[in-house]
Amino acid sequence: MRFADKLRARWDEADTLLCVGLDPDPAKFPEAFAASEPDDTADALFAFCRDIVDATAAYACAFKPQIAYFSAHNGGEAALQRLIAHINGAHPDVPVILDAKRGDIGSTASQYAIEAFDRYGADAVTLNPYMGRDSAEPFLQRNDRGCIFLCHTSNPGARDFQELQVDGVPLYQRIARTIAADWNTDGNCALVVGATYPGELKVIRGIVGDMPLLIPGVGAQGGDVEAVVRNGAAADGAGLMINSSRGILYASPGAGYAEAAADAARSLRDAINRFR
Amino acid sequence: MRFADKLRARWDEADTLLCVGLDPDPAKFPEAFAASEPDDTADALFAFCRDIVDATAAYACAFKPQIAYFSAHNGGEAALQRLIAHINGAHPDVPVILDAKRGDIGSTASQYAIEAFDRYGADAVTLNPYMGRDSAEPFLQRNDRGCIFLCHTSNPGARDFQELQVDGVPLYQRIARTIAADWNTDGNCALVVGATYPGELKVIRGIVGDMPLLIPGVGAQGGDVEAVVRNGAAADGAGLMINSSRGILYASPGAGYAEAAADAARSLRDAINRFR
Repeated sequence: MRFADKLRARWDEADTLLCVGLDPDPAKFPEAFAASEPDDTADALFAFCRDIVDATAAYACAFKPQIAYFSAHNGGEAALQRLIAHINGAHPDVPVILDAKRGDIGSTASQYAIEAFDRYGADAVTLNPYMGRDSAEPFLQRNDRGCIFLCHTSNPGARDFQELQVDGVPLYQRIARTIAADWNTDGNCALVVGATYPGELKVIRGIVGDMPLLIPGVGAQGGDVEAVVRNGAAADGAGLMINSSRGILYASPGAGYAEAAADAARSLRDAINRFR
Repeated sequence: MRFADKLRARWDEADTLLCVGLDPDPAKFPEAFAASEPDDTADALFAFCRDIVDATAAYACAFKPQIAYFSAHNGGEAALQRLIAHINGAHPDVPVILDAKRGDIGSTASQYAIEAFDRYGADAVTLNPYMGRDSAEPFLQRNDRGCIFLCHTSNPGARDFQELQVDGVPLYQRIARTIAADWNTDGNCALVVGATYPGELKVIRGIVGDMPLLIPGVGAQGGDVEAVVRNGAAADGAGLMINSSRGILYASPGAGYAEAAADAARSLRDAINRFR
């Protein structure tokens, strides 16, 4: 199923706008996952994330593994493959977003598209638009998959370049307009907009119509759920994938980590839905 | 040794500004590397690149493996690790640039820094500046390593956003100024500037003083060597890592691929030096 349709179906059927981010940091794992050998780290990455996935799937409109947390470790790629295969098998209605922020010339981008969509089997991938249209093209052409472009990110440095004025509007607005008007021919584009900048979120929603928005930055980064929903929801009350990673993954350091993750995910889903 | 010092020493001692790009595409490999089993692909990636490296090291100021060409394949990461370990062992004077164009929030960027510098043992990494200063910080802090930021890239899409006017100057110039003035405190920054835009290269050299510039785009992408050297060299006639990938890797499809690669590398080194 096309990413856009799978996401829409999940929003409707599970009544959730929550995206569960999978950023597994072994230093924060519950004791049960303490790796005694370096080679065990990859197994722990998989097993911890699998437990979180199984505990939170009922509340998730998407899962978003962050590839850097796997790529920092030997064997991390195999763990990520196992994890996505597990999600696709056990929770086939929940789309998987590979958070990789790729961006390169066309011939290289084609390799990255193979990595994300074929090797890992992700439904969508995050992309950096700085290199322009031809760097996005190999992803856009895979039009059953989703292309989620950085627009206004959640970090402090988002102000450094993304807010520079170009022709009287900030760069991030220009990028949003270009993607909505020129790159989204097949309806397979989405944007990353940080929860920490609710004013900018409102402006972007006005530019892109009902395009899906991936919203990092609630929880550890300080974004406010009410402001995100009020400023970011599409006209039908959906249109958002509001991500939480650390607040769910590390909700409890003890043996009850999975139950605590489920509770945190359910709470956040409910908090989001209160403002829709 | 610090990346900047290792690169400077290599420029001086080997009298070369040529960077050999390692973008291994099995579809273009000589017959000797035809993989009979899918699992053989990773071995072929390593073996082909090793032969190219050994044939061209005498003419190279740096090697630049492009991680996407490895990440598209199962086992590709292990092949990349073997390759960089081989370069560091057999050609310890030649710095390794991991071409990965990473860029993410600080906590994630820290994981990518571990990937590039610790897992792979690269001397430098390419980075995307769109997310701003804090996304670069975990790399900048590893100040023995090089941080090579995208500025004006070699592809057609470079015009889409990088040339937009901000406060009266194009965005890529603003980024060059910011990195040179604010991010390069430890002298560990460099920029990517495409050979296909020699006018922009000249402007950037004027902004950044003697900062090293990585120049993709000669050869298959059409960039002109004379224009690159005349417009891009630093005051001392160095300052450049002029990359060629496909023109060297696939110089001959037959059994003589390594000799052909050596010939292509030597020719390009000599062509570059004629204009210094």
